[in-house]
Amino acid sequence: MAMQDFPFDVITADEYDRLRAAYEPLTESMRRLVAAGIRTGVDVDEIRQAQAAIDLATEVLERTQRDTTSTLRHAGTGRPLAWANPAVGLRNAIAPPMDIRHESDGTCWAEFTLGPAYEGPPGLVHGGICALVLDHILGEAASDGLTKPLFTGTITLKYMRGTPLGPVRAEAFIERTEGIKTYARGYLGDAQGHTVEADGVFIRPAWARDPGGQERSDSGIRDSA
Amino acid sequence: MAMQDFPFDVITADEYDRLRAAYEPLTESMRRLVAAGIRTGVDVDEIRQAQAAIDLATEVLERTQRDTTSTLRHAGTGRPLAWANPAVGLRNAIAPPMDIRHESDGTCWAEFTLGPAYEGPPGLVHGGICALVLDHILGEAASDGLTKPLFTGTITLKYMRGTPLGPVRAEAFIERTEGIKTYARGYLGDAQGHTVEADGVFIRPAWARDPGGQERSDSGIRDSA
Repeated sequence: MAMQDFPFDVITADEYDRLRAAYEPLTESMRRLVAAGIRTGVDVDEIRQAQAAIDLATEVLERTQRDTTSTLRHAGTGRPLAWANPAVGLRNAIAPPMDIRHESDGTCWAEFTLGPAYEGPPGLVHGGICALVLDHILGEAASDGLTKPLFTGTITLKYMRGTPLGPVRAEAFIERTEGIKTYARGYLGDAQGHTVEADGVFIRPAWARDPGGQERSDSGIRDSA
Repeated sequence: MAMQDFPFDVITADEYDRLRAAYEPLTESMRRLVAAGIRTGVDVDEIRQAQAAIDLATEVLERTQRDTTSTLRHAGTGRPLAWANPAVGLRNAIAPPMDIRHESDGTCWAEFTLGPAYEGPPGLVHGGICALVLDHILGEAASDGLTKPLFTGTITLKYMRGTPLGPVRAEAFIERTEGIKTYARGYLGDAQGHTVEADGVFIRPAWARDPGGQERSDSGIRDSA
């Protein structure tokens, strides 16, 4: 896949704020809907009534569908917005979403809540959802907030104990870099400590390696997140 | 966590069919809504109109919320329904859903479609979504369709290449069992072959080990899926 396949449009901070104010409440409404659907015990007539309202909303939103071939990048931070991303996307109701903070030392962290929509065994987060959030935050750390082109080589997850539904914290950092490989580590946990630990190896793709030794780091895309 | 924390209600095949017919179209409507929201380009007035319809649907579904402390098990297959599960749940709009088939030799497989809601880099499935579906299907294989109590110890994912959005196939099987450990392997792939390979170690929890040597396998719960 070539870099020119990933066009970027830069948007200003003001435009970002305007779009965020428009879309974020819509996505939050969808998240409440998904949770209500999982737990509902209403009768079939009420289910069909709810479904009709949902289908109406879909019809309104489908009147204009945007071009999905370009990715927006924030003029202030230089980072891609990743609005559609299933881990962090403000416009994707599947995402918790993780609100990832970047420290000056390169550490990334996010504190967020995983509710009933992410449940595996009763009261606990699905192990695969733990994997989703850890894959994402390790990738953010390894790629400096998705500003360096990298793809995931391998990731290993060690489950220490079940992760209770509710508030969680994820954190990741670069352990070391060796040539084209970046080694990142991180964890997911609750107030009692780590529940899952992760180690990942991220690879700089061939098209981003300069034979003269200078990295091309202007793509802002990580291939597997 | 003790086994008595996971009560089961058995439902008949007829009741399963009745409930599935009620809920499945509702969840499908929610999945279309989530996808439409990601790509919509309508103006703010239309966004608010859609949001009002969504909030109405949520209000209807919240009129009766069911008890979530018990898990339904199908009378015919003996397997938990996992209707709320974020990988396979028929009632969870986050789930693709994976429709997992169990072969007589213990192999599990699922063919399903991953659309724009699961996108990471343009045109490709988010690496963490690959991890979610592989964690789940390895757990299904290791626990014989969630009928044996197991929790995930570790899982390692090897990304061979990006997984294009669209139809995919996941498969998993038990490689070997050693005492309390079950080793499972699997892959995710498209028509061109494997895109991600996975190895997992699943552990039988202490409360399910009988000192006399006989396993307790009547709980039907895997702790981390």
